[in-house]
Amino acid sequence: MNDVIETILNHRSIRKFKDIPLTDEQIKTVVSSAQMASTSSYIQAYTIIGVKNPETKQKLAELAGGQAYVENSGHFFIFCADLQRHELIGKMENTDVSEALQSTEKFMVSVIDAALAAQNATLAAESMGLGICYIGGIRNNIEEVSNLLKLPDYVIPLFGLTVGVPESEGSQKPRLPFENVYHEETYTQSEDKLISQLHEYNETVAEYYRERTDGKRSDTWTGQMAGMLSSAKRKQMMEFVQSKGFMKN
Amino acid sequence: MNDVIETILNHRSIRKFKDIPLTDEQIKTVVSSAQMASTSSYIQAYTIIGVKNPETKQKLAELAGGQAYVENSGHFFIFCADLQRHELIGKMENTDVSEALQSTEKFMVSVIDAALAAQNATLAAESMGLGICYIGGIRNNIEEVSNLLKLPDYVIPLFGLTVGVPESEGSQKPRLPFENVYHEETYTQSEDKLISQLHEYNETVAEYYRERTDGKRSDTWTGQMAGMLSSAKRKQMMEFVQSKGFMKN
Repeated sequence: MNDVIETILNHRSIRKFKDIPLTDEQIKTVVSSAQMASTSSYIQAYTIIGVKNPETKQKLAELAGGQAYVENSGHFFIFCADLQRHELIGKMENTDVSEALQSTEKFMVSVIDAALAAQNATLAAESMGLGICYIGGIRNNIEEVSNLLKLPDYVIPLFGLTVGVPESEGSQKPRLPFENVYHEETYTQSEDKLISQLHEYNETVAEYYRERTDGKRSDTWTGQMAGMLSSAKRKQMMEFVQSKGFMKN
Repeated sequence: MNDVIETILNHRSIRKFKDIPLTDEQIKTVVSSAQMASTSSYIQAYTIIGVKNPETKQKLAELAGGQAYVENSGHFFIFCADLQRHELIGKMENTDVSEALQSTEKFMVSVIDAALAAQNATLAAESMGLGICYIGGIRNNIEEVSNLLKLPDYVIPLFGLTVGVPESEGSQKPRLPFENVYHEETYTQSEDKLISQLHEYNETVAEYYRERTDGKRSDTWTGQMAGMLSSAKRKQMMEFVQSKGFMKN
């Protein structure tokens, strides 16, 4: 196994950091690594905001649902879908780009671009001994987050990435069975087979929680998912996304 | 610089492969690496289809717009947003999950999950000396691709990843200036500053093309983008996405 695969397979989310800010050089390496990810037709449809200011971090931690590790981290990055510079290009090149920018296709392109970049950032950080945690919680109050960061039209904050020197080790949750995630040729899974895989996986997940809590907790994965999905969250998402200019057609 | 960052910064898309299929072990490593990416609240909302069959690859190459390197590669992965297993969980756990699954929020979650996983797959492959190219072109004919792969409701093919032993070296397109992509504290870019950065970048990109074509081609980035964005592509996207159950609210 090489160092890259070892870093990938060793990933765990870190939620407790030492009080050590990232250096400018570390920030530069993380962002430059993000930028080398593939990008759809060279579009580079994302922007990264880095937050150092303790007050802004505190506000973002609150807006993300009181996640202290946003505040107490070495640096907080926010990955944004960004077609704003492409709107400007329309003006520079005297071209009407509005229909393209407003398409669902280009929304997907910018979300995918931003996520590919973020995972490069993650691995670059982890390879330097830093820990990370993705913060989807910023979408709890996406409009407030957007206003706080002064994001213009055609820019949407997708998720945060909190990065720092790990204070705790974190643990690695067992993933779905390989056969459940990977299919050859077609999506051949029969419902019965899928259900039997999920029952087996439930045992693995329950064992993981039992071990870590001295038997006090024994969630299954399907139970956890059903609980989480029993109501819709962040219902304002489509309205917000459209208010920023995206996904109108 | 460590091996991980070196692999990340050395990325280039490969569009010509040797006629050598990936081994089962390589496939397993690529998929297992994908699975270790972070996932929103443990949801694991994606599936990976691997295609070996030459006829299916040929069809997919055609559907993606005649991209021969889809056909002539070591393996073709298709990364799909997948909430189908979560629909099944609703049945298993006797819980109504439909409103959550149909939300724009969960569509975004599944797209981000799939992309994070894909970038891990990419780096794992590249670290083993393999080359890759993302194939957004499968969205040109997304419904046909979906039917060919027999994808059920709540599963959408997002992009392909063609992987194999490189036959050519590929080249590395210069990225946007660091200052254009990364902002601190807020999105402070003034329009004038942004335009001047883009003019400077245009020079870099034009020089890149001139060098590679003996002066025959000298595209600017903003010119290329304006051309690409002058009309909307893949206009059926929203309709297709909704037809699969996603993003109805």
